Amino acid sequence: MHDLTHPITSGMQTYPGDPSVTCTPALRIATDGVSVGHWGLGSHTGTHVDAPAHVIEGGRTLAEVALHELCGEAIVLRVEVGEGSPYGLAELEAAVRLPARLSPIVVIDTGWASYFGTDRALLHPYLDGSAAAELLRRGMHVLAVDTHSPDPTHLESELPVHRTVLGADGLIVENLTGLAALSPRARVGFFPLRFGGDGAPARAVAFAE
Amino acid sequence: MHDLTHPITSGMQTYPGDPSVTCTPALRIATDGVSVGHWGLGSHTGTHVDAPAHVIEGGRTLAEVALHELCGEAIVLRVEVGEGSPYGLAELEAAVRLPARLSPIVVIDTGWASYFGTDRALLHPYLDGSAAAELLRRGMHVLAVDTHSPDPTHLESELPVHRTVLGADGLIVENLTGLAALSPRARVGFFPLRFGGDGAPARAVAFAE
Repeated sequence: MHDLTHPITSGMQTYPGDPSVTCTPALRIATDGVSVGHWGLGSHTGTHVDAPAHVIEGGRTLAEVALHELCGEAIVLRVEVGEGSPYGLAELEAAVRLPARLSPIVVIDTGWASYFGTDRALLHPYLDGSAAAELLRRGMHVLAVDTHSPDPTHLESELPVHRTVLGADGLIVENLTGLAALSPRARVGFFPLRFGGDGAPARAVAFAE
Repeated sequence: MHDLTHPITSGMQTYPGDPSVTCTPALRIATDGVSVGHWGLGSHTGTHVDAPAHVIEGGRTLAEVALHELCGEAIVLRVEVGEGSPYGLAELEAAVRLPARLSPIVVIDTGWASYFGTDRALLHPYLDGSAAAELLRRGMHVLAVDTHSPDPTHLESELPVHRTVLGADGLIVENLTGLAALSPRARVGFFPLRFGGDGAPARAVAFAE
């Protein structure tokens, strides 16, 4: 099994405007016999799943998302795009021809996970909204990326990819890491905490073949 | 796939003395364009994994626990024991003879998950410390239960099962649910958040056969 998850740590990088991550001791072995931590964090911390309710009023929450939607064979697409640049079907097809019918889970490896935690992580490449629509037409149900967002990461973004994918009742997974180890076809699982809101941090894994 | 996880909700039942669970809106679609929640919770909330560092000074944290330790074939043992009563090898063998060599993951179904959230959940049956030691001798590495603890749940407990299992560098999973659906041999996965502390909430699943 291969871990595709960024560690969650106190003060770690978050999406601009999101709650910061804190971890303080609640109980200590020396005084309480057990060690227990008290965490504060946002629902979209680190490697996480977006439910439709993240941007769609009345959209599905994670309570209405089935485990099997987030687990199965994925197609892994690699793009090489510069800082802050958009990518579309042409860039997605640079390495491998996109099949007419996609697996429900599409994983996009931009290589940007290595910048996670630095300022440069916020200047990641982003998917073109019309390309997201075409991926959905070809059968995509879950869009999984190794960046903070499949849209540009700044507070003025209109979030076209979020609106397209979540508006179609699909799901988005953000901030994957470790994708270089995956084959073009990989069996993956995204396991969010069972929290019934707009999204939740997840343990993301690839299963051995 | 079958979910073995209790939902995490604001104000849910916790182990006595542990931090309470809160969930408040941090961002709202109407005013911010997106919905994001701010969570407060303890590291041992709901369905979760205990690392050795939970009770052992200098013990392994979850950062040092490999994913494959928490995923694989499990033996599912069912016990029928009364409120607040201990169970040992005799009770574990009531339904099925314990093999001399166990799978690394041992799941114990007491039926107590149905009381989760009520006062009665705290009066659960508990494993005998010497039986825990015998399970370890037979190859157990992960002890997974459907109760708040494999030890009695009160602040005066000496935690003999915790000390035995975590002291042997094993792992404990607590508050599983949905175990009635499992065969005596089941393929399970416990996926904690990637938080490097004494434990973490997890998504617990059983894979279809």
